[in-house]
Amino acid sequence: MRNILIKIAYCGADYCGFQVQKDKPTVAEKLQDAIEKVFHKRYDIKGCSRTDSGVHARDFAVSFKCDGSIPCDKIINALNVNLPADIVVKECEEVPEDFHARYNSHGKRYVYLIHNSTIRDPFLDKKCLEYKYKLNDKIMDEAARHFEGTHDFSAFCSAGTTVKDFVRTIYSARVIREGDMVKFIVEGDGFLYNMVRIMVGTLLSVSMGKIKPDEIPEIIDSKDRSRAGKTAESQGLYLDKVFY
Amino acid sequence: MRNILIKIAYCGADYCGFQVQKDKPTVAEKLQDAIEKVFHKRYDIKGCSRTDSGVHARDFAVSFKCDGSIPCDKIINALNVNLPADIVVKECEEVPEDFHARYNSHGKRYVYLIHNSTIRDPFLDKKCLEYKYKLNDKIMDEAARHFEGTHDFSAFCSAGTTVKDFVRTIYSARVIREGDMVKFIVEGDGFLYNMVRIMVGTLLSVSMGKIKPDEIPEIIDSKDRSRAGKTAESQGLYLDKVFY
Repeated sequence: MRNILIKIAYCGADYCGFQVQKDKPTVAEKLQDAIEKVFHKRYDIKGCSRTDSGVHARDFAVSFKCDGSIPCDKIINALNVNLPADIVVKECEEVPEDFHARYNSHGKRYVYLIHNSTIRDPFLDKKCLEYKYKLNDKIMDEAARHFEGTHDFSAFCSAGTTVKDFVRTIYSARVIREGDMVKFIVEGDGFLYNMVRIMVGTLLSVSMGKIKPDEIPEIIDSKDRSRAGKTAESQGLYLDKVFY
Repeated sequence: MRNILIKIAYCGADYCGFQVQKDKPTVAEKLQDAIEKVFHKRYDIKGCSRTDSGVHARDFAVSFKCDGSIPCDKIINALNVNLPADIVVKECEEVPEDFHARYNSHGKRYVYLIHNSTIRDPFLDKKCLEYKYKLNDKIMDEAARHFEGTHDFSAFCSAGTTVKDFVRTIYSARVIREGDMVKFIVEGDGFLYNMVRIMVGTLLSVSMGKIKPDEIPEIIDSKDRSRAGKTAESQGLYLDKVFY
């Protein structure tokens, strides 16, 4: 059998995340439907990550084993005509038999979008966090840099995970402002359950003055979820890049 | 009575245009609903323009006469909490009694967005025209400049209008490319029914080589709708600015 790797992008607003769930619309289900239409057989697919309900992806990797000899460039178009407008296949290539979209990845970049204005953007409904109080992006950036490095991020992980090892390496964490848009950009070798969203909630607390930037190392060391900020809404989160 | 002018923005994807229509969702109906919630009375509203089904606005003016003494800055917030996420009030001011959002306007700017890529953008569904064949934006811009000036634009007006005078002045018409996005930006003192969308369809024909840029003056002079290009889809069109 061939092992096919596709890179997709999707607007997650109308989906309960990537992973198939019974009686709920998911990206994986739409993708399996499209693959079935093209290959006339329903195949298992492996995603690079689970994403929460409402989370978006600009670059999400999916691998699946299949029969047939459709060339990769034809697979892109064939899948796209069978997918809804909010999911698109961008790239397709054949990979070695033992390649797995999740286990072969050596890191990811996430971007979290905060539209910081008293007037919401009607074109970004469900595509960002709307936040009307003026954010101090400078102090948020100062705080974000403390996430960098190899740490036990237990304080930044929601309950309900099956993970045993909470140590992750953050290569880079930055907050930048582009007009009314405040962006949190974070790259790391892996992320715990809700980790980016809790980081964002913590940075919002920093902007509000409830947490000081140099308290971040203490919060990490505490391994205590209650010391970090709230889990920010899912709709601002984008899986921006998967690294192989 | 006070005469209130509000500036709104809306994503038109889920609406059958601005103007109220029986049993169809319209922006005006949502706005009247919100005004009624705030002022406890249903008022007539006057829009600066009708927009077609699916057309968007970044700056659309609406005036209405009302009682009460709610300050303008409070009206903005009060309306916004009563409006759906795809419609927003950006500004509010009191204007003279004889001010009318439509008749007092002395011009408008429209922008038409074409996402020119073989891979559609899942975040721009119903917010642009998806066009997969490579567009020649240089030759489209050359053609667009021929729209400038005062002309009888009968050839660029769909049937079904009640207008008698087809003469309009175009102050500026340009095509620019920003990466995969090709934008047609046009300013004028007024626009006929479907005029911008027919201009775009004509520019697409220019890019395809079916019409030469210097044939545009002939097409205008012909006053013959069949000489111009097709009416481009509504979803790429944005009312970008109303001038007062």
